[in-house]
Amino acid sequence: MPELRKDPIIGRWVIISVERGKRPSDFITRGQRRKGGFCPFCPGNEYTTPNEIISFRPSDSKPNSKDWTLRVVPNKFPALQVEGGLGRAGEGIYDMMNGIGAHEVIIESPDHEATMSTMPLKALEDVMWAFHHRMGDLKKDSRFRYALIFKNEGEVAGATLEHTHSQLIATPIVPSLVKEEMEGARRYFDYKERCIFCDIVHQELETGARVVWENRNFIALEPYAPRVPFETWIMPKQHESHFDYAYEGKYAGLAEILQQTLKRMDRILDTPPYNFVIHTSPFNTEVNDYYHWHIEIMPKLTKPAGFEWGSGFHINPTPPEEAAKFLREARV
Amino acid sequence: MPELRKDPIIGRWVIISVERGKRPSDFITRGQRRKGGFCPFCPGNEYTTPNEIISFRPSDSKPNSKDWTLRVVPNKFPALQVEGGLGRAGEGIYDMMNGIGAHEVIIESPDHEATMSTMPLKALEDVMWAFHHRMGDLKKDSRFRYALIFKNEGEVAGATLEHTHSQLIATPIVPSLVKEEMEGARRYFDYKERCIFCDIVHQELETGARVVWENRNFIALEPYAPRVPFETWIMPKQHESHFDYAYEGKYAGLAEILQQTLKRMDRILDTPPYNFVIHTSPFNTEVNDYYHWHIEIMPKLTKPAGFEWGSGFHINPTPPEEAAKFLREARV
Repeated sequence: MPELRKDPIIGRWVIISVERGKRPSDFITRGQRRKGGFCPFCPGNEYTTPNEIISFRPSDSKPNSKDWTLRVVPNKFPALQVEGGLGRAGEGIYDMMNGIGAHEVIIESPDHEATMSTMPLKALEDVMWAFHHRMGDLKKDSRFRYALIFKNEGEVAGATLEHTHSQLIATPIVPSLVKEEMEGARRYFDYKERCIFCDIVHQELETGARVVWENRNFIALEPYAPRVPFETWIMPKQHESHFDYAYEGKYAGLAEILQQTLKRMDRILDTPPYNFVIHTSPFNTEVNDYYHWHIEIMPKLTKPAGFEWGSGFHINPTPPEEAAKFLREARV
Repeated sequence: MPELRKDPIIGRWVIISVERGKRPSDFITRGQRRKGGFCPFCPGNEYTTPNEIISFRPSDSKPNSKDWTLRVVPNKFPALQVEGGLGRAGEGIYDMMNGIGAHEVIIESPDHEATMSTMPLKALEDVMWAFHHRMGDLKKDSRFRYALIFKNEGEVAGATLEHTHSQLIATPIVPSLVKEEMEGARRYFDYKERCIFCDIVHQELETGARVVWENRNFIALEPYAPRVPFETWIMPKQHESHFDYAYEGKYAGLAEILQQTLKRMDRILDTPPYNFVIHTSPFNTEVNDYYHWHIEIMPKLTKPAGFEWGSGFHINPTPPEEAAKFLREARV
């Protein structure tokens, strides 16, 4: 059973995931990922993954057969385990709980060569719908407080399989970064009676210097204080607290701006490895005025080193105004 | 002039360091670090670094000549700039200040092949003394609030030069991670009238399961909630709030336990890349009862990916009890 452990000084939680590699020798031989070869996510190999949770496929085709366009399956090597109770416990001055949670993989396309920036727009919209469905479903499990949806693209960004996929981890606690964001946003709202993200959208649209692209409902921009070069956020222009509240055209518009942004990154940064993460209100939060869901995309161009690890602040060699200009002017 | 910019939502500061590489093409060609070749840190090449701030050398030898055993020089490509005022300013809803700070390099040995785990113990003690001197000196500059001393060992950990060196960055604000630690430690002290780090040392010595090594004044242990496999902390056994308050035998004992720890890591993890960071009380803090300086060593064996970036919590596949056992039993 994995464990969730809390650092007693700053309250940071860590997942001690005993199901995964752990002996010193496992780390020494790592980094020899085979390219090509057998792919468990390709059509015909469905038997190698745990049974699918949902899939998009013709209505006459059977679950776990090969005629799908998108599949969601449990992670075969989950960081957290879905069965069991929380089992909160102390150990002297320390606190822990069982590593309960869901860890799912969204296989975004049957095409081994596809990427989020090259797949048909409709396929990318389907990925957004899959996120929507899974989030809505996991919300019903009262043990969970949050579902973090993220993507690791490229080995440098932490991907262990080439075939395009995203992941979802549902956790019994609200992650510290999300909590900090919620608290910061609420503090601002208490003071100004306005959503800070709405104010950012407003100021960015006015000055324009950090805007990458926009469509009817969304804006892609370089944040004022980006941690890494070419860090890009995608935000709804109108206030929305939750990623998973759907309305007409929402996920089509989101797929469009996400693909535009990724295509531009691919163009000027030569298909960089990246991580993206969806930030949204926690499960136990109603529709609210102060938090604004968004996507953060972070290309992996620099390595966080001792200074970043020790201080929590980042050194970024690329001003966001320059990054925005390059991305805006990229021909795609 | 570099800029310090504040994220308006969670208050995270970022250094936008315009003196360093920044155009998209700079990132594409990166990663082709030449091995061997010219080394600016080797004896005889002193003219290629900025003039030394301090050095350990025979009393009859001239500054910036080649007879040194340790040199401290300004970083040639500093993340922060030492001249100027803070120039705090707003930009709509955003806050920034000039990127004022000191960025120094401690060249730990004239020997290009030396590492902290292989250099003579006396040389490593001298490195600790150099840290002590530089911290004491920078404290006198009223613009600075903190000096972060860190080491990036190996390319994966962010080192751009092979020759063994550490770095120091003095900042006009207390880094957020340090602030969180100070706050957490003070909260605990207010509640218990005890230092939380002292309580950790006490509990760890009692149970023994996470202890790696100890000598008279210091203990090396795996923290209860480590972010990464084989994360190791070195702490004074008795309460000490500041790294730079010296006493008889302090830095000799510290050099000994640091080298023991690094030798054990080298042995069982095949000379892994790592970062280490000294955590100490900020400049404007007197000797105090609640914060306890320590060193955090983080081998770079895993890659932080989307989940870590998005949640602020870490997945660690190695329980610290197992890591401690391997390190304790390593033959060095």
